[in-house]
Amino acid sequence: MIVTLAGGVGAARFLQGLVQVVPPEQITTIVNTGDDITLHGLAISPDLDIVTYTLAGIIEESQGWGIQGDSYHALEMLKRLGVDTWFQLGDHDLATHIRRTELLRGGATLSEVADLIRRQLGVAVRVLPMSDDPVATYIHTSAGRMHFENYLVQRRAQDDVLGVDFAGAESAHPAPGVLEALRTAEAVLIAPSNPIVSVGTILAVPGVRAALMATAAPIVAVSPIVGGAPIKGPAAPLMRAMGFEVSAYGVALCYRDLIDVLVIDEVDAALAGPIADLGVGVVVTDTIMRGPNEKRALALEALHAARRTTGQSSSTLWPK
Amino acid sequence: MIVTLAGGVGAARFLQGLVQVVPPEQITTIVNTGDDITLHGLAISPDLDIVTYTLAGIIEESQGWGIQGDSYHALEMLKRLGVDTWFQLGDHDLATHIRRTELLRGGATLSEVADLIRRQLGVAVRVLPMSDDPVATYIHTSAGRMHFENYLVQRRAQDDVLGVDFAGAESAHPAPGVLEALRTAEAVLIAPSNPIVSVGTILAVPGVRAALMATAAPIVAVSPIVGGAPIKGPAAPLMRAMGFEVSAYGVALCYRDLIDVLVIDEVDAALAGPIADLGVGVVVTDTIMRGPNEKRALALEALHAARRTTGQSSSTLWPK
Repeated sequence: MIVTLAGGVGAARFLQGLVQVVPPEQITTIVNTGDDITLHGLAISPDLDIVTYTLAGIIEESQGWGIQGDSYHALEMLKRLGVDTWFQLGDHDLATHIRRTELLRGGATLSEVADLIRRQLGVAVRVLPMSDDPVATYIHTSAGRMHFENYLVQRRAQDDVLGVDFAGAESAHPAPGVLEALRTAEAVLIAPSNPIVSVGTILAVPGVRAALMATAAPIVAVSPIVGGAPIKGPAAPLMRAMGFEVSAYGVALCYRDLIDVLVIDEVDAALAGPIADLGVGVVVTDTIMRGPNEKRALALEALHAARRTTGQSSSTLWPK
Repeated sequence: MIVTLAGGVGAARFLQGLVQVVPPEQITTIVNTGDDITLHGLAISPDLDIVTYTLAGIIEESQGWGIQGDSYHALEMLKRLGVDTWFQLGDHDLATHIRRTELLRGGATLSEVADLIRRQLGVAVRVLPMSDDPVATYIHTSAGRMHFENYLVQRRAQDDVLGVDFAGAESAHPAPGVLEALRTAEAVLIAPSNPIVSVGTILAVPGVRAALMATAAPIVAVSPIVGGAPIKGPAAPLMRAMGFEVSAYGVALCYRDLIDVLVIDEVDAALAGPIADLGVGVVVTDTIMRGPNEKRALALEALHAARRTTGQSSSTLWPK
């Protein structure tokens, strides 16, 4: 099994590459659920859905979330009913939330729901939430402490970030299969996701960091920061608030005690030396995933880096 | 106040006439909630919504339920997620159920939710559920006992009807305002709704029948049976199963101890004598509500019948 740690859009695109070079049923992805939020009484799991919809081929590529060509009729009506509809939820997308909410209320776990949804949508990659317990990422800002989605979507990341906390994380358990997947992985790939509020949230679940430290598998991360800025999302203020430089070097600092190799972009080639000085292996390549070919090439680079780390060469899992 | 007892489509159309001749803020409608059902974890109140959407001018007239021109994208996606989607729920319509479910789970009563929704949709008529307590109409059929919606929508009323029960009715309380509305009404109009599973359900709520017996207001019903068949819906097998002839005379038998006058259609003029012999006043008129004019005329006939019963003539509530 190849195991990935995943946030939302960046991870989903990375997985689109990975499934081109590894049989999808041999991939497990452990997904951040710190962005999860209840809106209109519905359980929303943004990253689980982004990853699942992307792998199902139904993502709205232009935005990286939601279902392609979706309508927003229910949301229009909710607004007419006096509801503040700051979070975009398409009509097809709503069905997922309705179904998830019904199953959760009926006693199913989030893992079970995620598994059912990905199977119904024909996704062969195993999609695991990081935890079945509620964990909520809160951003401490100049305007107060607020849920990550309120910070990012409702207030458009306009507030100065002072810190982060993961409410519920300390008492959360890794979802069934998470620790086992990390323990038995042939390689762990940390997708190009936000190191603070995507991967950092997964790492905040007790047991996950230790499992990564203990696994025999090589661990390769792909930097989400290219040329000093994230490809997408609010990584910059969050990394800065946590004391990290917003650069591939800062990403290396975030992960230095965990990873064997960091894959960085060619524009950051000058950082390869300083990163290597941290004791982290470096691969310099094109990390901008413009299309299927670039996604595939990046996944291959990450896998090759893992293979070089272990010295393995015979496994069928290591595509040439 | 003019108070109506209402089921779904027939009542909604009757109310469209009534609001043409009585200021809508002087109308209270008490609506059957025995059809209410939870589907996909959402609280559906078919008759409340039919009445509210109709009065709001957003009903899909061609079917009598749902919102005009609605799409069914969420339902398509639910189906893709493996859900049995036998009950049609449009995307705009879903918003109502999502909102209602959220409010109910948050501790609001069904009355409060109904009031909020009708106000948001600009409906001046006061819309009261018969009860805030759950009551569910079950049909006993040759294929077993099933919820009314399963009988009517899922199985298309194909099963032989043996009987009816209103689960929860014996311990239900009339919603706040229901008994007061009946006590202080200037007239009570029983809309042309199913006498067994629309009006009958309302009457099954303890206290409602007694309030009707005690009110000083004239009580006028409009027969939903014309020429021996209902205009819409499954009244025929239900009336038959309960031992009533499927005719305006059968309707008169259903209501004989409650009503002062039954409004029947011209095609049933021959039944006027037998109905009068039951001690029930009769008005014979055109009861088929083809358009706004016929709806208005029928409402006027019902009001005039009420006025004649009381002998009142000065109230501004009695339009000429």
